[in-house]
Amino acid sequence: MKKPVDLAHACRLINHGPTVLVTSEFEGRRNVMAAAWSMPVEFVPPRVAVVIDKRTYTRELVMASGSFALCIPCRDILDATYTVGSVSGRDYADDGGPDKFERHGIARFEGPVLGLPLVEGCVAWLECRLIPERHTEDAYDTCFAEVVSAQADARVFAGGRWSFRDDNMALHTLHHLGGGNFAWPGKSVQAKLLAAR
Amino acid sequence: MKKPVDLAHACRLINHGPTVLVTSEFEGRRNVMAAAWSMPVEFVPPRVAVVIDKRTYTRELVMASGSFALCIPCRDILDATYTVGSVSGRDYADDGGPDKFERHGIARFEGPVLGLPLVEGCVAWLECRLIPERHTEDAYDTCFAEVVSAQADARVFAGGRWSFRDDNMALHTLHHLGGGNFAWPGKSVQAKLLAAR
Repeated sequence: MKKPVDLAHACRLINHGPTVLVTSEFEGRRNVMAAAWSMPVEFVPPRVAVVIDKRTYTRELVMASGSFALCIPCRDILDATYTVGSVSGRDYADDGGPDKFERHGIARFEGPVLGLPLVEGCVAWLECRLIPERHTEDAYDTCFAEVVSAQADARVFAGGRWSFRDDNMALHTLHHLGGGNFAWPGKSVQAKLLAAR
Repeated sequence: MKKPVDLAHACRLINHGPTVLVTSEFEGRRNVMAAAWSMPVEFVPPRVAVVIDKRTYTRELVMASGSFALCIPCRDILDATYTVGSVSGRDYADDGGPDKFERHGIARFEGPVLGLPLVEGCVAWLECRLIPERHTEDAYDTCFAEVVSAQADARVFAGGRWSFRDDNMALHTLHHLGGGNFAWPGKSVQAKLLAAR
């Protein structure tokens, strides 16, 4: 049920603060890590910021390739999300053995614009081209990027909007409270504007 | 039920991506606006990034004062949250009339370190000192800051962790899906680590 998302709506995919999986690839080396700290910074052109620690293997691949993808996991893959956020792809790479995808049985498919590895079982996917910002990368581990492709699972994101319902609970996004404890949205409500006094 | 939060745990307050209210004050002028785009960037010292559009009244006050607060609203104040995100404090200021707090009946109390106006009825509050970063403020409306005080409502945040339960549902945080549609976390679960193959 993957459907392309209009780039003008791409920021809606992470507007509500979900945990994301950051995927990366450079010269045949691939990785996937969980990140709680990301946000949109502009609707059009769609731009995002994400914190990727400079000690991570992902950061090395992102800096080398100039790109990364944000994959939005859901309740169905809760334990896999926590797991890829708790082990380092560098340890596996140093072994010379299979990478984190292989070791943890994480299926992937190819991103339509940049060919990045995207995680099957997620509910949304954004391919991003890094906008080099040396100072903020160094000082705050904050990487800015432009979104160049966006897709979502139409069972839970349609018409440019998340639709969290009782009948698609397994597809609700994850929000990390810390220490492997995750919450997810229940139903949503429409707020009303209050009159000024 | 306001309790101080150890600064080492301050980033936990926004780790799961809640919508925030940004409050500001300069020379007797005050404002409050909603923002969906914020994130931690470092645990210790606790630092955050928040997107504040350069056309907003809040941005003017933040740049002038070098500070802002992030107040975390909850279901109890859903409509007020949407409302302060939909009207401009500058329009009220240009009138010479009462500010957004007065016009919308939003009670406030004083922040313990910077004396910033904090919103009553929220469930967490962070006072932040701006770290001037002219380039990212200009290019991405992204403002970096250090958290200098943190408090939370102990009915829903205790022991350095959010505790979202059925019996405190009115205090659950808000997550903006777009267009005034908000979700909130239900119960949370502890993820398990999966073995590698």
